[in-house]
Amino acid sequence: MDTLRLAIVGYGKIARDQHHPAIANDPRHRLTAVASRNASVPEVANFESLEALLEQGPEIDAVSLCTPAGVRTQQARLAMAHGKHVMLEKPPGATLAEIETLREDAERHGVTLFASWHSRHAHGVAGAKRWLAERQVRRVDIEWKEDVRVWHPGQAWIWQPGGMGVFDPGINALSIATAILPRPFHLVDAQLQVPGNCQTPIAASLDFVDGENVPIHAEFDFRQQGTPPIWEIHVETDAGRMTLEAGGRRLLIDGKLQQEGPDAEYAGLYARFAELIAEGRSDVDVSPFRHVADSLMLGYRHTVEDFIE
Amino acid sequence: MDTLRLAIVGYGKIARDQHHPAIANDPRHRLTAVASRNASVPEVANFESLEALLEQGPEIDAVSLCTPAGVRTQQARLAMAHGKHVMLEKPPGATLAEIETLREDAERHGVTLFASWHSRHAHGVAGAKRWLAERQVRRVDIEWKEDVRVWHPGQAWIWQPGGMGVFDPGINALSIATAILPRPFHLVDAQLQVPGNCQTPIAASLDFVDGENVPIHAEFDFRQQGTPPIWEIHVETDAGRMTLEAGGRRLLIDGKLQQEGPDAEYAGLYARFAELIAEGRSDVDVSPFRHVADSLMLGYRHTVEDFIE
Repeated sequence: MDTLRLAIVGYGKIARDQHHPAIANDPRHRLTAVASRNASVPEVANFESLEALLEQGPEIDAVSLCTPAGVRTQQARLAMAHGKHVMLEKPPGATLAEIETLREDAERHGVTLFASWHSRHAHGVAGAKRWLAERQVRRVDIEWKEDVRVWHPGQAWIWQPGGMGVFDPGINALSIATAILPRPFHLVDAQLQVPGNCQTPIAASLDFVDGENVPIHAEFDFRQQGTPPIWEIHVETDAGRMTLEAGGRRLLIDGKLQQEGPDAEYAGLYARFAELIAEGRSDVDVSPFRHVADSLMLGYRHTVEDFIE
Repeated sequence: MDTLRLAIVGYGKIARDQHHPAIANDPRHRLTAVASRNASVPEVANFESLEALLEQGPEIDAVSLCTPAGVRTQQARLAMAHGKHVMLEKPPGATLAEIETLREDAERHGVTLFASWHSRHAHGVAGAKRWLAERQVRRVDIEWKEDVRVWHPGQAWIWQPGGMGVFDPGINALSIATAILPRPFHLVDAQLQVPGNCQTPIAASLDFVDGENVPIHAEFDFRQQGTPPIWEIHVETDAGRMTLEAGGRRLLIDGKLQQEGPDAEYAGLYARFAELIAEGRSDVDVSPFRHVADSLMLGYRHTVEDFIE
């Protein structure tokens, strides 16, 4: 397969820290252009917008959209209408409905659409899925707790509608759980803690069940202070207890370390994107985002003290 | 085709007022049994629960679930596991995720699953869809306003999470709009008015666009007082203005009445259910419910005065 000529659209922190290095280290991709209002990147063609890139730019095969979810859908539609393959940062849209439109567009234009979930490419996730496939799951506990002031400094958008609050990191846990557990699950109860001056929850306590009534409990909390973040999934089975720690980078069985790897989630994403393009397929799994929508629709909102950063 | 032996599960107001008469007037169905904790119906076999009906009851082909959304999914799964076709009142579940599980169950068990939207069977809806199919839509305005004290007396559940507030009637408008408009649409802005003592909105102002950027505006309001309800959809096209009034019962073009019919939505539902079973197909369109989830996820919540019934 020829090298894919790739453009990044939206060159903010996540593009600089994660996408660009992952692309640079992957021989299947070559960063050819960047479209960004605020940044300019050496050694590639720079444009102020995706429109300008598509009109004046060098030939490209694919775009990776690292812009906010609110504008991504329109950009994705434009890129696909020009025959470009598209990779979306998570979540794949601001609404569930628009993702259906994107899915139809990808089919119509015959291009690959990849709704990426970076946490699914954490080092221990594939091993966890394999181990669970041969066991009976009895119960699942998810803990996803971090200090919002440390991990999201100045991100006022996170407290606005669509910013998802604690679900912004929590959706990473849901993206892993939906990937490793043997059966789909659905929400039965959600308790949301919403600061009086915010639109989105600072903490959430969620109860799901799967099709065999296995309970799946999740605690998301942004109010962790003074201690390291906890990004863990514990699964009790008929043959031992499996734990994913460090956001999926470490896999333990009955407390014993089985696998541990460096943070290479975005390398995994770009490898997968190249595979999907080579196979002429799309991968658009909305299930993590659907669980967020269900939680915000069905959740009981408790007002808690104002959040002052 | 043989007459379908049908059971109603959950014999409350909607079953008594709408489902039972519609079934009684349709020769393709015969009401054979009822499962209800609180009601007993003459001339059919009565059971306290779906479980008891399936264990001890007469042979049935299909069940119509008129129970609250929170318990319906479990009942639907049980009925399908026993090989029964299932019709669901709207909305088809308490969460979007559980509907995916139901969809998979229906396929696995080879039965028909029908997620019903009664407003789609209002008299003018089919004609509206046909008329719009040949025009260019320019803009859509939806007004769905009623006095909650008149139309939902004593329904405290409507103000609880999952009760959907003004989206309980509003989803009827969305079920018509998703049926008659030529393209899917998605939410771009939602403003929600939530009483200080309630969990769900008493009013909502919604802005959608479709794939061609046609604006679709919706006003849902429970605070209509002293005047008849307004259940209207107005569509401006390149060749005139179409209006659906009275919840879809009346169709007007440029203000002139084209079609008007009696309230026969549930007759339409049961006719459709019989057709789907005869064709061995399911019909599970979640799009109206997905718009509600998107609205509650993305909506800006304004606190308004307490609601006292």
